[in-house]
Amino acid sequence: MPNQKPLNIGLIGYGFMGRTHSNGYKRVNDFFPELAYRPVLKAVCGRTAEKTQEFADQWQYESIETDWRKLIARDDIDAVDICTPNNSHAEIAIAAAEAGKMILCEKPLALNPEEGERMIAAVEKAGVANTVWYNYRRVPAVSLAKQLIDEGRLGRIFHYRANFLQDWTINEDLPQGGAALWRLDAKAAGSGVTGDLLAHCIDTAVWLNGSITDVSAMTETFVKERMHNETGKMEPVTIDDACAFLCHFGNGSLGLFESTRYARGHKALYTFEINGEHASIRWDLHDLHRLEYFDHADDSIVRGWRSVHCTDGDMPYMDKWWVPGLQIGYEHTFVHQVADFLKSVETGEPCNPTFRDAQETQQVCDAVLESARTRQWKNVG
Amino acid sequence: MPNQKPLNIGLIGYGFMGRTHSNGYKRVNDFFPELAYRPVLKAVCGRTAEKTQEFADQWQYESIETDWRKLIARDDIDAVDICTPNNSHAEIAIAAAEAGKMILCEKPLALNPEEGERMIAAVEKAGVANTVWYNYRRVPAVSLAKQLIDEGRLGRIFHYRANFLQDWTINEDLPQGGAALWRLDAKAAGSGVTGDLLAHCIDTAVWLNGSITDVSAMTETFVKERMHNETGKMEPVTIDDACAFLCHFGNGSLGLFESTRYARGHKALYTFEINGEHASIRWDLHDLHRLEYFDHADDSIVRGWRSVHCTDGDMPYMDKWWVPGLQIGYEHTFVHQVADFLKSVETGEPCNPTFRDAQETQQVCDAVLESARTRQWKNVG
Amino acid sequence: MPNQKPLNIGLIGYGFMGRTHSNGYKRVNDFFPELAYRPVLKAVCGRTAEKTQEFADQWQYESIETDWRKLIARDDIDAVDICTPNNSHAEIAIAAAEAGKMILCEKPLALNPEEGERMIAAVEKAGVANTVWYNYRRVPAVSLAKQLIDEGRLGRIFHYRANFLQDWTINEDLPQGGAALWRLDAKAAGSGVTGDLLAHCIDTAVWLNGSITDVSAMTETFVKERMHNETGKMEPVTIDDACAFLCHFGNGSLGLFESTRYARGHKALYTFEINGEHASIRWDLHDLHRLEYFDHADDSIVRGWRSVHCTDGDMPYMDKWWVPGLQIGYEHTFVHQVADFLKSVETGEPCNPTFRDAQETQQVCDAVLESARTRQWKNVG
Amino acid sequence: MPNQKPLNIGLIGYGFMGRTHSNGYKRVNDFFPELAYRPVLKAVCGRTAEKTQEFADQWQYESIETDWRKLIARDDIDAVDICTPNNSHAEIAIAAAEAGKMILCEKPLALNPEEGERMIAAVEKAGVANTVWYNYRRVPAVSLAKQLIDEGRLGRIFHYRANFLQDWTINEDLPQGGAALWRLDAKAAGSGVTGDLLAHCIDTAVWLNGSITDVSAMTETFVKERMHNETGKMEPVTIDDACAFLCHFGNGSLGLFESTRYARGHKALYTFEINGEHASIRWDLHDLHRLEYFDHADDSIVRGWRSVHCTDGDMPYMDKWWVPGLQIGYEHTFVHQVADFLKSVETGEPCNPTFRDAQETQQVCDAVLESARTRQWKNVG
Repeated sequence: MPNQKPLNIGLIGYGFMGRTHSNGYKRVNDFFPELAYRPVLKAVCGRTAEKTQEFADQWQYESIETDWRKLIARDDIDAVDICTPNNSHAEIAIAAAEAGKMILCEKPLALNPEEGERMIAAVEKAGVANTVWYNYRRVPAVSLAKQLIDEGRLGRIFHYRANFLQDWTINEDLPQGGAALWRLDAKAAGSGVTGDLLAHCIDTAVWLNGSITDVSAMTETFVKERMHNETGKMEPVTIDDACAFLCHFGNGSLGLFESTRYARGHKALYTFEINGEHASIRWDLHDLHRLEYFDHADDSIVRGWRSVHCTDGDMPYMDKWWVPGLQIGYEHTFVHQVADFLKSVETGEPCNPTFRDAQETQQVCDAVLESARTRQWKNVG
Repeated sequence: MPNQKPLNIGLIGYGFMGRTHSNGYKRVNDFFPELAYRPVLKAVCGRTAEKTQEFADQWQYESIETDWRKLIARDDIDAVDICTPNNSHAEIAIAAAEAGKMILCEKPLALNPEEGERMIAAVEKAGVANTVWYNYRRVPAVSLAKQLIDEGRLGRIFHYRANFLQDWTINEDLPQGGAALWRLDAKAAGSGVTGDLLAHCIDTAVWLNGSITDVSAMTETFVKERMHNETGKMEPVTIDDACAFLCHFGNGSLGLFESTRYARGHKALYTFEINGEHASIRWDLHDLHRLEYFDHADDSIVRGWRSVHCTDGDMPYMDKWWVPGLQIGYEHTFVHQVADFLKSVETGEPCNPTFRDAQETQQVCDAVLESARTRQWKNVG
Repeated sequence: MPNQKPLNIGLIGYGFMGRTHSNGYKRVNDFFPELAYRPVLKAVCGRTAEKTQEFADQWQYESIETDWRKLIARDDIDAVDICTPNNSHAEIAIAAAEAGKMILCEKPLALNPEEGERMIAAVEKAGVANTVWYNYRRVPAVSLAKQLIDEGRLGRIFHYRANFLQDWTINEDLPQGGAALWRLDAKAAGSGVTGDLLAHCIDTAVWLNGSITDVSAMTETFVKERMHNETGKMEPVTIDDACAFLCHFGNGSLGLFESTRYARGHKALYTFEINGEHASIRWDLHDLHRLEYFDHADDSIVRGWRSVHCTDGDMPYMDKWWVPGLQIGYEHTFVHQVADFLKSVETGEPCNPTFRDAQETQQVCDAVLESARTRQWKNVG
Repeated sequence: MPNQKPLNIGLIGYGFMGRTHSNGYKRVNDFFPELAYRPVLKAVCGRTAEKTQEFADQWQYESIETDWRKLIARDDIDAVDICTPNNSHAEIAIAAAEAGKMILCEKPLALNPEEGERMIAAVEKAGVANTVWYNYRRVPAVSLAKQLIDEGRLGRIFHYRANFLQDWTINEDLPQGGAALWRLDAKAAGSGVTGDLLAHCIDTAVWLNGSITDVSAMTETFVKERMHNETGKMEPVTIDDACAFLCHFGNGSLGLFESTRYARGHKALYTFEINGEHASIRWDLHDLHRLEYFDHADDSIVRGWRSVHCTDGDMPYMDKWWVPGLQIGYEHTFVHQVADFLKSVETGEPCNPTFRDAQETQQVCDAVLESARTRQWKNVG
């Protein structure tokens, strides 16, 4: 531990995700003492020097940059972490790969599959470690779901359903664009809830249940115009406020997905449920430390959904934290991903989801948006 | 009360629904003493005399018939209650209307909209009272949801989602057809989960949220062949085991519906959720005495989903039963529908859903099945 | 079934319990067709002829009486059902026993153990069938709990905790005494929540977990004076508004009980939980169709409390009702007790809890009230 | 922020609590950037040099000590954090106070009230900042409960009930004493669940609902002998495995408390519920990010328990973390207490609970144990 090797991080973008990632880097070695590497917060990059310095001071980054190209050019940066709006992921990632940097990229990977392809080509050509921050894979309960499925406990899968429901854009007076609101501007975000929220649902689904083959989708924009922060004028809203789709998985199961920012009463309700021949699983981000499990093999008179409090040491990642009954929270998913990334650097194994893994979600999102546009079923990829 | 007028019931079919309806007739005056009519269990009709007599003895029907045409021809029958498989609803109902009988018909109304039209024409020409047993409208919590929506508490509606999940047909050895299993035979049932389960979801949705305009659906038959009880041979399964669809409502909200008999862990989980501008509602048949309610107008620090235990006297129907905290169950929905039907006989007002009301569900089901067949969006009606 | 033997019921008191029992008598043969007896609503007795007749008309009792002694004297009455306030149970029951009538007595058995002893002596001397309406034993989930314990699934028991929480007397303007409010008058009720609510908790506990040996209790009367309906004046409140006690069971486990009518937010929340070496159970009257079950033998990674929806045919009483997933409610507990009583009449076996069984609860209540008065631990019996 | 003043921490004991506190020190400035002080992990003290060094390496303490007297004597230590077994709190704290150090002491404050008095005298004489780690006060939902009560939303309080249920000592083969098991040895711990678990319940209760005046308690030791890790022999178990008590609060409300390590199915279930005239509150450590709230002023038809997801920025501490819907966990309570302690150092105001505040819990625990021994009601203090 005293002789952990440093891994110098260069963070680009210091918004909400900049905070979650920074916390991951700073916490990881306290709880994963066996790691061979220790992240060093070498530099953070933002467009405004003053605000960037403020962030650097708070989180103890050693230096700042205001041009991401300079950050990438620095010899003392081992890994570049991309936390900028979606429309700059491709350009930065490709440049970073060419500069031989490891890359940790926020989700979604790109604006569209074409960008994604170029990013994959770049990292694979450069042979650099790469991963995409689909952090919900590393909620202990979700990792446990993966384990249960891989153990064959569910048997043949019949149904997968997921939704991601929020309610923060119902107010018509909320503006679009700029700072914290770039997610409402399709130019910066690529799409609305599809890339922001459904991408999470799709990533988890593909990980747990395999490929999606075809989709039928609908999207809706409930508020048609909002004041744009950059122009100061009312502008058409270009994102999808809500999106739902039907799909088939390659394993023959049926899927149902929905996402919206107009579901009054839900702050960030991401849920999924998987129904198998022998057992079923469901999970809910609002109580992320629990996994619901139903096992048909139980004696019929005492058979029921079990609420598993995922805080025991034999559950994924939970030997690192406290004692049974004491829950962890949202931010720990990022600590886990940093830990897994550092292990992958040590072993040379990929850290899932790689850019290539994440491209599958990109393709599904693309098919979803295309299906909604054309009102046709669309094949994926 | 001693001078209530008799209303003579002739029940056709004595399966599961025959029991729920009979119970409704026998219980109603004990709890709704103000009613002007008292149902009299005049006759029950079934194909097998012995079994029909056994049912009559148990439930105290005064007589039996083995030919429904004879039952309809009897002068001492005021109202005919149709509890037979779906493929005989139309023929019986039209004959009963022509005989001037009131009609209470099990859901779904018919095998298809064409049959439905003929049934509507018949009852309207005859001018006879008619209703369809979409009993879930009369769960107190569901009636309360209707009241809250009609009071405008939700404001503009953005989303409606519903599902009806069961798991009783996962076993491949379960045969199809005959007695209790006619629901697995498309010839008798018309369709699978669409007419059996989704019809309930659609009826409630249309009642609460207005018309559905267009749908995109998928269906699946997971087990392709089952032994048929009538032929004793393996036969192709002709019903839909699962069905899901996207839709738009006339009020601009988006809908998402799903039903299956392959959702391990769910016995009869019918849930719906409605998200409005100001408030949201959700309900679950497995805990039918509760309504979940979220009101955005609550103080933000104590805002959350409320679990309303629908057992107080100021909630729909609940002044008739016990005291706050003491729940009623499934069977009471039928008592309520009988009560409302008797009131409608007294006042001459229709008892919802009438055949005409129920036809809308028929049309949606038809569009759903057609959309699934053609993989196209379909308009309703 | 056509040849079931009549069992003529004479009901004394037609308040809330008069309704629940009458419903039990009228429903039982529809759902328990195998019974040899059919209850006949022969007579109901109340002090006011007009109101009694109104009740008789609604529930179809054949006749009325206004003097319970006359009812007991009638030759055409087989069984007397006592639904009067607690302070008349003993007198009526003893007279009924002496008249050779079977007796179904509302709980609590008596005002105190001394009365209880005399009642037991009377029924045992007369050799008449007798039972006390501790109806919660016959909630299917509670009967299932009994079965699980008897099967040894819990192992050694460490803890039993129960509470019965209501909030209907918080309002200081609520009067005491008379009609529906005799429960607030110690002269009529004997005690407050102890006899009314804790008696239920104690009955279930003794049935499930065996005898209670000693108790330490506290009681409180939060509102000291209320207008008395009979005098029209403010009078001291003589009942216990709240009562809690610690206890030991004979099996070495610890007990904790609480009851109140001042628990804002709880209408009629009766819950219990039992912690055993191998498994635990909990139940809640507000969702009476569910039993929570925890089994330590489950694989540790999928171990959790199971929510068992008690609606399957292999659970106690549930083969009599509907299909899995469709819940029954409060009133069914009385139907079940009538069914069991009728079976006991047929077989000559006692129908639990008999007067003698119910006396144990009486003794615990007595020790609880005495402990509260003296602020000392008290032995039971 | 760059110019935060260092506050040098000397940690004594590096067990479970040593980890939670260290994490608090390391995280606090990332999330509370406005603080004037920054904790510096100057030294950790343990009896075994090797293990202490291992902990120091993992958590990045600058140095180690193996004699707590040496740690206290160091000039470069500003604050001493006591995480040793309970039987050394008094000696260390008094010495630290005499050395002029600030003190953060793990709970319970002491083995008994006499020790507590001496500790209070020492810190007050020395005029040093002091606090006790009753961390559950700083769960956002619990702090919110305090706020709601202080705002008068509950009105007159009638009932307070709390329990802390675990199941980790049911196995008879679990030894007592030594390392992680000193909690099972009364010599080291003072008592069993009373000081370990009930102390938490009492601290919260006194904070939320005011003083407890008198108690009636029972304790039990279910497993009478366990192998002692230090002697290698079977020895009598000297702690209380379970403890329950009744009490009165100074405000006239009734209290009911229970704790055990034999409640199968509960890992660390700390719950409390408060019933007031107007509103009620309940909370559960297993879902610590939720507060249940019932407001009688709600419209009766939509009145129910609200499940408040305590993740919004207007709730206590939650402006420091993520966005609505994203929960924090157990460890954050310690971060909050460090933040509040640092603020108190800055302002000179006490950081609750001080030693004096925590003494009240000590007195209640003492009365509880004495009441259990004597089977008498005991006054507190």
